[in-house]
Amino acid sequence: MPVHEYRMTERKDDRLWGGRFEREPNARFDAFQRSFAFDRRLLPYEIAVDRAWAKALEPIGIFTAAEVKQMLGALDKIEKRAKADSAWLEKVGADAEDVHHFVEKALVEELGPLGWKLHTGRSRNELVATDFRLFVIDAAAQIRNALEAILNAFLQQAKANRNVPMAGMTHMQHAQPILLSHFLLAMRKPSRATSLDCSMHRRARTPVPMGSGALAGNSFAIDRGAIARELGFSRCTGNSLDAVSDRDFALDYLFALTGIATHLSRLAEDFVLFSSRNFLT
Amino acid sequence: MPVHEYRMTERKDDRLWGGRFEREPNARFDAFQRSFAFDRRLLPYEIAVDRAWAKALEPIGIFTAAEVKQMLGALDKIEKRAKADSAWLEKVGADAEDVHHFVEKALVEELGPLGWKLHTGRSRNELVATDFRLFVIDAAAQIRNALEAILNAFLQQAKANRNVPMAGMTHMQHAQPILLSHFLLAMRKPSRATSLDCSMHRRARTPVPMGSGALAGNSFAIDRGAIARELGFSRCTGNSLDAVSDRDFALDYLFALTGIATHLSRLAEDFVLFSSRNFLT
Amino acid sequence: MPVHEYRMTERKDDRLWGGRFEREPNARFDAFQRSFAFDRRLLPYEIAVDRAWAKALEPIGIFTAAEVKQMLGALDKIEKRAKADSAWLEKVGADAEDVHHFVEKALVEELGPLGWKLHTGRSRNELVATDFRLFVIDAAAQIRNALEAILNAFLQQAKANRNVPMAGMTHMQHAQPILLSHFLLAMRKPSRATSLDCSMHRRARTPVPMGSGALAGNSFAIDRGAIARELGFSRCTGNSLDAVSDRDFALDYLFALTGIATHLSRLAEDFVLFSSRNFLT
Amino acid sequence: MPVHEYRMTERKDDRLWGGRFEREPNARFDAFQRSFAFDRRLLPYEIAVDRAWAKALEPIGIFTAAEVKQMLGALDKIEKRAKADSAWLEKVGADAEDVHHFVEKALVEELGPLGWKLHTGRSRNELVATDFRLFVIDAAAQIRNALEAILNAFLQQAKANRNVPMAGMTHMQHAQPILLSHFLLAMRKPSRATSLDCSMHRRARTPVPMGSGALAGNSFAIDRGAIARELGFSRCTGNSLDAVSDRDFALDYLFALTGIATHLSRLAEDFVLFSSRNFLT
Repeated sequence: MPVHEYRMTERKDDRLWGGRFEREPNARFDAFQRSFAFDRRLLPYEIAVDRAWAKALEPIGIFTAAEVKQMLGALDKIEKRAKADSAWLEKVGADAEDVHHFVEKALVEELGPLGWKLHTGRSRNELVATDFRLFVIDAAAQIRNALEAILNAFLQQAKANRNVPMAGMTHMQHAQPILLSHFLLAMRKPSRATSLDCSMHRRARTPVPMGSGALAGNSFAIDRGAIARELGFSRCTGNSLDAVSDRDFALDYLFALTGIATHLSRLAEDFVLFSSRNFLT
Repeated sequence: MPVHEYRMTERKDDRLWGGRFEREPNARFDAFQRSFAFDRRLLPYEIAVDRAWAKALEPIGIFTAAEVKQMLGALDKIEKRAKADSAWLEKVGADAEDVHHFVEKALVEELGPLGWKLHTGRSRNELVATDFRLFVIDAAAQIRNALEAILNAFLQQAKANRNVPMAGMTHMQHAQPILLSHFLLAMRKPSRATSLDCSMHRRARTPVPMGSGALAGNSFAIDRGAIARELGFSRCTGNSLDAVSDRDFALDYLFALTGIATHLSRLAEDFVLFSSRNFLT
Repeated sequence: MPVHEYRMTERKDDRLWGGRFEREPNARFDAFQRSFAFDRRLLPYEIAVDRAWAKALEPIGIFTAAEVKQMLGALDKIEKRAKADSAWLEKVGADAEDVHHFVEKALVEELGPLGWKLHTGRSRNELVATDFRLFVIDAAAQIRNALEAILNAFLQQAKANRNVPMAGMTHMQHAQPILLSHFLLAMRKPSRATSLDCSMHRRARTPVPMGSGALAGNSFAIDRGAIARELGFSRCTGNSLDAVSDRDFALDYLFALTGIATHLSRLAEDFVLFSSRNFLT
Repeated sequence: MPVHEYRMTERKDDRLWGGRFEREPNARFDAFQRSFAFDRRLLPYEIAVDRAWAKALEPIGIFTAAEVKQMLGALDKIEKRAKADSAWLEKVGADAEDVHHFVEKALVEELGPLGWKLHTGRSRNELVATDFRLFVIDAAAQIRNALEAILNAFLQQAKANRNVPMAGMTHMQHAQPILLSHFLLAMRKPSRATSLDCSMHRRARTPVPMGSGALAGNSFAIDRGAIARELGFSRCTGNSLDAVSDRDFALDYLFALTGIATHLSRLAEDFVLFSSRNFLT
């Protein structure tokens, strides 16, 4: 029996981790450990990774070209339905442990046992590590764009009020006269400095974890470079233990947000002060 | 009276901010507001900036070549004495408000009124912003070296124990067999990822604030590029308001330390566990 | 015109702060500054405070007994409908700036201009300060009960396994034999120590802010003690500036949660370790 | 051989944990693991606990009355010398692993092998837990006094300026006229609310850990109540595992400091604003 048949044969039903336990889990624990309620926001990234994985399974003989085609068709359909049909999303999701399980259930609904086959040679550990990276990269791009919009507004205001003078202050005392444009443009640099441009927040600079398995790597001759290219990543992670456990990119993102929020808060406080009756008179 | 004489004439004594107040400050407040006790660690950086500033004052006619020479000689002497003669450091420091004041007092002790002249056209705001950057850049280099030493130790251990197997674990349960070398090398990437290599922590990538004044810039035709080159900075800051108030580089450094400490703590916990009787039997 | 008529006359429409502005606010800003989406959870507390306030307005001649009766009837009706009729909640809430505005709109819908009269002599500042205290007091009671349930489970396990020995460990090494019951009961004290029993988290020990106005107190001869008794508070706040701005009770609550979570996390980690194959063999 | 002789016989030299290791520890590790450089500030509390422990060892037959007297005399001498003779403190401290070891070394220097006997039936775990509680209780008392002094200064200012009006502000806009005394007295309540009065910060309300051993309790019939009374504690800890590991009292203290600092910072910001030219004109 070929390796890739193993999982299909073993999986007689939809239970993800029935093997070790004799009894069903406690119902409240079961509800507690489900993550679909919040990891469903990873769905678009999960499907993108699934597409890349399906393609990568063909050259190593797990999928036929026809199966890949079926799989890609089903993934398109699931992606569209998940957006358009919230009742269906809720129904399938109600039984799903997490976003990976959700897609698997939807694939089996669509394709029968072939749906289970997509998970061949991979682990939820590397999937969530990859999905989460894609999620953070997108979130960083949104923040970057919003910030750019604010900074452009400052630039426009600076241009429109180029020579308007104001009091430059130290210790809340008048210090030296400056220009309003000088004040407004002071925001441009720090917002970039606490930047979202660090390597982890650009798809082109991030390594892809797929191929790391649960922790010990992949025993198939899967083409990891092709997966990285397919997903727009620049390269593959080097150490599978680190690849599946590393969440530094998320901390980096949160730290960048903290810095941006601090600068905006400081600026907002200045505007509150400048709008005070004490400053206007 | 030339501009550069102004300060020398006005400063009749050593008091830094006597102008606005009629009475001496309260003694306990005075003690509270002094920072020399902790900013004395910026002294080597302050002196380096002083050297660059002295040289920059010559082309714009504030200093003669002879005065620059005297100044550089005095700075060398102060630097050496501060290292070698702690009694002198304590004595001069006892009256110094901060590290900038300390150097000024030592210069006046050495050179008479010429010592005051070095502060022409600059502010303590830009000085401390520059000193602090240099301090953090050096601190980051030290951490980088120490980290490199740890990672090299792991690399040596990995090489020496290349094929030693161990249990890879998930959820504290045996999952898959891995190699000890695989485990040890998992530390290499994350330690670099939460990296000290961001732009602010390399002198060659950081902009120099000197020339920003207290907040509104410099009214002399000072050659800021020459100062940057002299100090090994790559370029000058663009907005003087931001330059004197920005401390993001210090937060970035602290965040990098937090990440490094988290990874080392995790590893240490693994070693504590592996050394437990439960894991050894 | 009696003082209490002033507001009713002035308020010709539903706009809360139209007086100072000539134009409508920017639509996106208007959406941003609305808080009903999250402060709606204060609704039961708002209504409880409204009941107490309505009663307090009668002795000082703002409401007749008949008006109080009408008001209480309307508040009961609104409370029930908000629970039962989510479509209505959403519809009225769509135009509501915050939970206070929501109730006012619902009261006017029910009672006409009399609905506006309830706000006589009070401010949203003291309302939210009071609502939020009641919310935290209730939340603390829930956590206290849940914690009691966990600790009772430990107590039961300790009783049922009174003499089961286990290895007491220091530094993850076997140190001295102890009893499982000893281990389990070690949780009882710390969970109480990081307690939710501090004065701010018991209604009977908290002072009520009502009567503090926006910040400067209340100019009617309102009976603050009666309001406190009605709401189960023990006493009234002493300084109106502090009463409307103090949120320490919420920080105290969050700190208590942090401590509880830390203890539970430590215990959970112990259970994970004890369930490890390394500890079971 | 009586139990209490065991330790004296076994301890042939000053090494604290030589038993398990065949070689001396690495010199840099040895330096790293020493804590005397910072736990020396626990010395007065350690000596107080030592006194109570010495007395408690007499009724159970470990010490004779004469030995207790010798011990108390030596502890007095050590306490005085540590204050007066810093060269001696440094010399003995240079070889001391921690504050407990320091006192033991000084006792042996003074009394010979009898010095070792004081540690009979106790552990450094319960010692540091007790010392640290005493330290925090004293630190809390200092902060409480300093805070009381600030609040009294506000009270004096409030009395001296009882009817001085000022602008009460909301959102940095003039809202309602208030009195300066009203403003100043607003600080009194919050500073008490984030109080240092919680049970852990008063000696009279804290339980003493002594008698908890390393973790599993004390096998002598030691009179824990007498130790508690001697040290001014109200009672004894109930669970030895919790007693030696609990540091919640320190977190509670830090949280109280955080709250106090936040209130003082807010007030200081108000004073900075009120001193601004914009507010003075």
